[in-house]
Amino acid sequence: MYLYSTLRTYLEDASSAKPTPGGGSIAAAAGALGMSMACMAANFTVGKKKFKAVEGEVRKQLDACMKARDDLLRLMDEDTRAYAEVSAAYGMPKETPEEKTARTAAIQAALVVAMDAPLKAVRVCRDALRATAALVEIANPNLISDVGVAALLGEAALRAAKLNVEINLHGLKDKNLVEKTRAEIDEAAVEWKTHAAAVMTRVVKGVGGTV
Amino acid sequence: MYLYSTLRTYLEDASSAKPTPGGGSIAAAAGALGMSMACMAANFTVGKKKFKAVEGEVRKQLDACMKARDDLLRLMDEDTRAYAEVSAAYGMPKETPEEKTARTAAIQAALVVAMDAPLKAVRVCRDALRATAALVEIANPNLISDVGVAALLGEAALRAAKLNVEINLHGLKDKNLVEKTRAEIDEAAVEWKTHAAAVMTRVVKGVGGTV
Repeated sequence: MYLYSTLRTYLEDASSAKPTPGGGSIAAAAGALGMSMACMAANFTVGKKKFKAVEGEVRKQLDACMKARDDLLRLMDEDTRAYAEVSAAYGMPKETPEEKTARTAAIQAALVVAMDAPLKAVRVCRDALRATAALVEIANPNLISDVGVAALLGEAALRAAKLNVEINLHGLKDKNLVEKTRAEIDEAAVEWKTHAAAVMTRVVKGVGGTV
Repeated sequence: MYLYSTLRTYLEDASSAKPTPGGGSIAAAAGALGMSMACMAANFTVGKKKFKAVEGEVRKQLDACMKARDDLLRLMDEDTRAYAEVSAAYGMPKETPEEKTARTAAIQAALVVAMDAPLKAVRVCRDALRATAALVEIANPNLISDVGVAALLGEAALRAAKLNVEINLHGLKDKNLVEKTRAEIDEAAVEWKTHAAAVMTRVVKGVGGTV
């Protein structure tokens, strides 16, 4: 869908008065951008004599970051496809009581599906931040600011994906699902804060800047 | 350069063991992604009877967000071109004293140029966050989570661009330029925090979530 579009086209469509691509897709794309910087930092570390002692661990984190990047790129398009269903359900006729019932059921079903892509993105970003926190300790320090960019965008992507889960929860009537999902994203948020703060403390020290 | 590449190609190149595209380019791209969501929210507001009273102001902020998005897309490529110069300077020979002097001078000149793209990105993101803070008050509230995504990515892009200014400041010997630039980015950071916090308080209230 948009994975093989130009950035220009993707952003033109996202900016327009069309429901998709929307916030969930853009959040996933931003996370993928961030992960590319963690991959670059790892790729400037592996195969270098100086970092031989941590080679195995860096390779492991590189694999995790590449997986996260590619998962997020897929979710960028998955969100766009899923959200189109929500939009279609809201567009259903609502004149007769039967139409109203059918429309409400279709919206509820579509919201559950639409919530899945940003929820998966929250999980992937949480894993990505774990990998980034491991990398900041062992990757080539010349790339420290790039690891920082990975953490900043991973954090923003997670928060943005979480917002897109929450907006769906807002409309959902299944109380159990709402509670379970809210607990999961709130837990991910706690973990993200710990990892992002740890990475940024290290990065800011490395570049001699301010947070 | 990458503006008309596919996202896949841009991210493959960014992930690889090549110096560019690096953190400054990725920061600008993430900011552009965020701004597309502010544009979408504005585009779902203008021309609607319900929001007639704020039409002029929304159009003004839409123009500001589109300008920010396009400026950031240009900076994405400008950073890549500028950073290639730094990389070339570091690769200069350093055997003789003359070579060392020439290399140091070339690095210093390239760092000043390379700092310019992320510094411009900091300024654009600051303006973008101002426009987003104005929009959150008046845009179609159905798009509130998208305005939130714009603020989250605008904030992360500003911080990531700032990090890329700081890594260049780290290597710069011109004390006056270092001081002047640091004062500017620190001031932008203070302003960003105010705007981002204001937007997110409003957004989180709107979606019934947690920050």
